[in-house]
Formats: sequence, structure tokens, C-alpha cells
Amino acid sequence: MTAPGWRRERFALPDGVVYLDGNSLGALPRAVPARLGEVVEREWGTGLIGSWNRVPGGAPGSGWIDLVGRCAALLAPLLGVDAADVHVGESTSQSLFATTVAGARQRPGRRVLVVDRTTFPTDAYVITSVARLLGLEVRWCAGPGDDGGLTAVAAALDEDVALVSLTHVDFRTGAMFDLPAVTALVHEAGALMQWDLCHSTGAVPVDLADAGADLAVGCTYKYLNAGPGSPAYAWVAPHLQADLDPPVAGWMGHAAPFAMRLDHEPSPGVGRLRVGTPPVLALSALEAALTAFEGVTTAGLRAASLQLTDRFLDRVDALRERFPAEQIEVVTPREQPRRGSQVSFRHRHAYGLVQALIDRGVVGDFRDPDIARFGFAPLYTTLADVDRATEVLAEVLASRAYADPAYAVRNPVT
Amino acid sequence: MTAPGWRRERFALPDGVVYLDGNSLGALPRAVPARLGEVVEREWGTGLIGSWNRVPGGAPGSGWIDLVGRCAALLAPLLGVDAADVHVGESTSQSLFATTVAGARQRPGRRVLVVDRTTFPTDAYVITSVARLLGLEVRWCAGPGDDGGLTAVAAALDEDVALVSLTHVDFRTGAMFDLPAVTALVHEAGALMQWDLCHSTGAVPVDLADAGADLAVGCTYKYLNAGPGSPAYAWVAPHLQADLDPPVAGWMGHAAPFAMRLDHEPSPGVGRLRVGTPPVLALSALEAALTAFEGVTTAGLRAASLQLTDRFLDRVDALRERFPAEQIEVVTPREQPRRGSQVSFRHRHAYGLVQALIDRGVVGDFRDPDIARFGFAPLYTTLADVDRATEVLAEVLASRAYADPAYAVRNPVT
Repeated sequence: MTAPGWRRERFALPDGVVYLDGNSLGALPRAVPARLGEVVEREWGTGLIGSWNRVPGGAPGSGWIDLVGRCAALLAPLLGVDAADVHVGESTSQSLFATTVAGARQRPGRRVLVVDRTTFPTDAYVITSVARLLGLEVRWCAGPGDDGGLTAVAAALDEDVALVSLTHVDFRTGAMFDLPAVTALVHEAGALMQWDLCHSTGAVPVDLADAGADLAVGCTYKYLNAGPGSPAYAWVAPHLQADLDPPVAGWMGHAAPFAMRLDHEPSPGVGRLRVGTPPVLALSALEAALTAFEGVTTAGLRAASLQLTDRFLDRVDALRERFPAEQIEVVTPREQPRRGSQVSFRHRHAYGLVQALIDRGVVGDFRDPDIARFGFAPLYTTLADVDRATEVLAEVLASRAYADPAYAVRNPVT
Repeated sequence: MTAPGWRRERFALPDGVVYLDGNSLGALPRAVPARLGEVVEREWGTGLIGSWNRVPGGAPGSGWIDLVGRCAALLAPLLGVDAADVHVGESTSQSLFATTVAGARQRPGRRVLVVDRTTFPTDAYVITSVARLLGLEVRWCAGPGDDGGLTAVAAALDEDVALVSLTHVDFRTGAMFDLPAVTALVHEAGALMQWDLCHSTGAVPVDLADAGADLAVGCTYKYLNAGPGSPAYAWVAPHLQADLDPPVAGWMGHAAPFAMRLDHEPSPGVGRLRVGTPPVLALSALEAALTAFEGVTTAGLRAASLQLTDRFLDRVDALRERFPAEQIEVVTPREQPRRGSQVSFRHRHAYGLVQALIDRGVVGDFRDPDIARFGFAPLYTTLADVDRATEVLAEVLASRAYADPAYAVRNPVT
């Protein structure tokens, strides 16, 4: 059994801080600053344009043009897929736009896109955008609930459904869809299954290939620790690739981009999801960040994550008994298979409570209207972090520091 | 009169290299590595999630959420526009997709998108993608030619045209459309005018507001020196903003992103072009890179650029006389108002010629099938660079080093 936080020395965490917000922005991997300095000063500064093919002193494959593939190779084991089926480099929203259009185009005649009401908002907006452009309609389904979402999804399925797009782990509650079972259910109805893995990958096994999923996207700045606004990934099952038809054909998705012809001949496979020039600095940070996962299994991540969330839930339950008047309501499922790598609870002063914790060195975050949310990044969060966080939470509840008038005005980014 | 290369000390150029490829990837501004180190180690490493609102020790407005606006403020003078009308953060291709859809939607009933055949390929692909999604058609027009494109564009216009999208400076030849005159011509036909400024901004004045243009996009990794794959900008004229309707609604383009509602209420103005989480590392590099332009006028950039291209053309003409058998054909217009900030010529061994120059420390680039291309970045390219480059070119022509069999196999990225 691996102890939670067993790779903490690979991360630069500030002293005196218990960081439980890695599900919003992962901590800085120590490998990143050195790598970025090298990319900027040596590869860009001295290699200049030549670094696209090969960086100064580098081997074949060291060039910037190979970065997307190198990142895909590091991500693939965490997704349970082949690297050849992964694209990296756009934002999550842009990736989701591309895969949703490409998916819907493979189910002509079916005119409904299903999305969960518990999804992260950008998914709702993007899928609505796709429906409008393609003349389809959006059908909402309920979130994962008590049974991993089987009842919710079954209620939304019929022969009109082209694609179901679900956020695997609910960003507010931490409730998790049963990925393999829901995928199978969706396939029975003849629809394609797309997963948003933003709040999963790096903490929860997803095993997309084993589950037979069709499409997936996810960000890399949460449990994958690649930095603020880092690039997203998209995965497309091999059986969809031959006819893959994304909405935006860009020059980097051309089979021969440097022939610079006016007619678009799509690159084979997921390469056609490439659009613009790859973001080299951001991809280099991602590549360095992912080295923190080398030699790590998703089963090991999951085991550590469950130790952390179990312990946090136990401690919060103790505080609920101690402070019944606070009316803390845990919204994260108690059953392990129904839970991602976070714990959330409702409190009537949730914003002030989170701010009071931050002011005392315990960083979680707030989600409108009344949720306090705590994420557990298995590589660097320890059981001692959990204990310290709940001790401080006890102080804040005892003192009612959450009601401080200083917390009446919210930050723009919560 | 400012001497070309008057800000060279702000760039980290390797010794012994004459770099004439800033129209493909700009040189490294010295301000970038220090800034990136600070963003990564202090803002991300110690400020963590809190840096979205305010970085450690920073003033209000120092937060990552303000980066897009800060970059827009630095870009606006180079575009001749108000910062409030500029969005920064997607790739050029994704920006062009967004502005083209938004533009076409403001000319309902008109079913033609015009694009120049001399455009950079991604524009052709993206506009074809838009036409397909919106049920429109693409009409090709000729490039800038001898009269700044007036004849070419006039021939493509009629009352069916919704939008004309042109690449201001031809990436192969350096020929330039007459931006104000073409804009006026397009408006006479009732269409919207969109400019791709990738090969212009930072070297050539564009003055979009004075010209009355409608839409523009451009990259920041060429004359703006923000690094490989750095984010693009998009500009939307104020008169189009109230009804601006881009194709992909993302969470950061919401009027209240952190309310996290399922219905999309677009942010006012160009803010609705925001899609995913802004790429903080890349935007920080861009912000630092743009400081090299502080106190610089576009007239000053243009004057320096013309000195450089005039001198290079003179020297190449001398070599054409000296080596008539080489059959060098200059394809860049001789008239200053028809020329961007590059000079290109045809040669039957153009690929080998460019490689032979690179091997001798003079970096230009090759464009299929037979063009050797040299860009002049006025902030850091000097007249001495021009002289040295043409001396080396003379050596390569005299020795016919371009025919070296080592140059028979091309690099993937040319």
C-alpha cells in the first residue's frame, strides 16, 4: 500500500499551507521551472526556428513538433488508452467542441445530444453551441446520484440520441458516474459515449479502452499539475478515427501542413484534431509535470485517494456531531465507488468558511451558492494534511470566524 | 529617424547568427525568461489558486484573470485600436473560426465568404469549415498583385458576399493588400472586412480603427516575439459587438463565469470571445514580450522595416547581375506601399539554398516549392545583418553549396 502524498518531494508546496485545491489548480511540480527555463533560453533563445525539428544538442524526436506526441505518451497510461489515440494542445472547451461535432457527425439522423445537468458549465455551453450549429437539440439528464447515473442516463436515452456527454466526477459534489456501466447502457441505445475527465484523470482510474468508450476530453491543470490554463487532451476511440470529421480544419491537422496547399487533406487519426500551431511553452510544462506520474499506477492513485477522502469524511462527521448547530451537510457520496477524489459539504456561510480556512493556511474552494469543496491530490496530499485541515476547520467552526464581515465581498474568481 | 535594430539589446540573439526568420518565430525578448520564472515559481508555486485574483505581493489587477486585458492593452497601439475591443488567448485558427462565424451571422441572407488564394493555408481551411457549418460557400479571389488587391477584390464582390477575409501580407511573397482602400471597397458592397494580420503586426502599421475595418486576427509569435505557439489576438469593431455571436460559447465568455449556471449569458463586448481557461504561462510570456514595444510607434517600425527591405532588395539585385545564370526571381513588390516586412525570391534550389545559408549562420526559411524567404524584424534586425546575409548569399551562389546532396532530404518543419 502506498502512503498518500508519497511523491510530495516532487512538488514545490509553500511551507505552512495545507493545499486541498489541486482539483482546481494542481501544485507546482519541481520539474517544471527548470524545464521551462531550458525551453525558453536554450531551445527558443539559441535554437530559434530550428527547434521545431530538433532542439540544440537534442536527439531526433526532441523537436517542438514532437511535443504533442510526447505528452500523449505520458498521458495515455493515466487514461487507459493508446498514445496514438490522444491529441493534446487545445483548451478543454475547444477540444469538447471538436469531439462533440465529430461524434454527432458519426450518428447522422439522430438529433439529440444528452448532457448532465451536473456538468461543469462549459460543457453545457459548448454542447448547446454544437446543437445550434448542427441543427440538433440538447436533452438534459440528471447527475450520477446514488447508482452511478444508470437511472438518470436510462431516462434520457432513446433512438434519437446521437451522443451522450457526461462529466465523470461532479465538480460540486464529487459524485461519480459509473463509467463502464453507463458506457454500456449508452451503447445499447446506439449512441456514442463521451466523457469529460477534468475532475478524474490523475486521481481516479478511467480505463477508457476497457470500458469501450468513444470520446473523452479533459484538462491538465487539476490533478495533472501542468499549470494555470494548461492545454487539454482529447481521446478518440480507434473505431471512430477513419471517418473523424471535426468542425475546424486547421493547418496543423493537415496530412502535409508544410506543403501549404489550399485544399485540406486531413491527417490520419487523431492528428486531424490539431488546429493551430502547438503551444510549445505550455506543452513543455505539461511534459515536465507528467514525469511526476512515472511509475505510478492508477490503482495506486485511487487507493491513496480513497484513504484521504475516507479520513476527511470521518473527521468531518466528527465535527458534525460536535457542532450540530452548524448544519453541515456532506454532499459527497459515502460509498467509495460513487466518489471521485474530493469531499464537499454545504454550509450557510460556505464562502466565508472557505476564506477563513485559507486565512489559516488551509486552501479549499467555494462553489456557488453554498458549497465548500476540498480536493485530494494523491501524489502530494498526506493524511497529516487531512488531520491539520480538519483541526483548523474545527477552530473556524468554534470561533464562527466564517461570519467575519471581511468575507462579505467575494473575489472575482472563487 | 530610428536605426533598424535599435532595440536589439532587448533580445537574446545567439552570437554569430543573422536571424532573418522573425516572420516565422520572433527572437527571444530578454524580459521573458525572468518573467516566466516569476510566474511559475512565485505566482503558481507559492500563490497557487489565489493568484487568479491577485499574485503574492501584487496590487489589484495583478491577478491571472487580468492577464488577457493587460495583453490587450499592450497590443492595442500596434493595431491602432482600443484595448477594450481586443481579445487574446486562443490560437489564430480558433480565433479566425470564431470571428468568421460571428461576422457571417451579422450578414444574414448573404451566402458567400471571400478569401484570397494567397492566404496562409489555415485561413483557407478554417473559412471552408465555417462555410460548411453555416451552409455558405467560399469564393476565392486573387492576391494583392500590383494594385494592393483592388482589382482582385472588386472582381469577387457582389451582393451575395457576407464577409471578405484577407491575409494582409502574403506569407510567401511579402506583397501587401492596401488595407484602407480594400476595406472601403468591401464596405461599398455591403460586406464585412476581416484582416489576418499574422505577417503584419509589429512591423507594418495596420490602423484598423482608422480604416474602419470590422474584424481582425493575428498571431503573436512572429514580429511580436511571444514564443513558439503563443496565443493569438482577435479584434472586433465596436459596432459589431452588441450582436456578436461566436460559434463556441465557453465558460470564460460568460457574463458571470463563477456563478456556474447552465444557461449562457454572454459577457459584454469581446469578452464573449473568451472560451476556456486563459493560458497563463503563455499570456505571461506575451505580456513580457510586448514590453519591448513600449514607446515604439508603428511609423517608426515601418520606417526601419523599409530601410531593411530596401537594402536587402538592392543587394539581391546586385547578386542577380553578378550571377545571372542563377535565375533568381524576386517576387516581393518593389514599391514600398505594396510590401510587408519580408523579401522573397525564387530559386530552383531554394530549399538547399536556405539550408546552406543556415549552415553558414544566416537564418531565413523556405516555402514550397521554390521560395527563399527573409523576414526583417525592425526592433532587432540591423543594416549590418542585411549586409552580412547578402555576403553569405553571394558565397553560397558562387560555390553552388545549395546543391549539396545533404539537402536532398527535407526537415519535417520547413
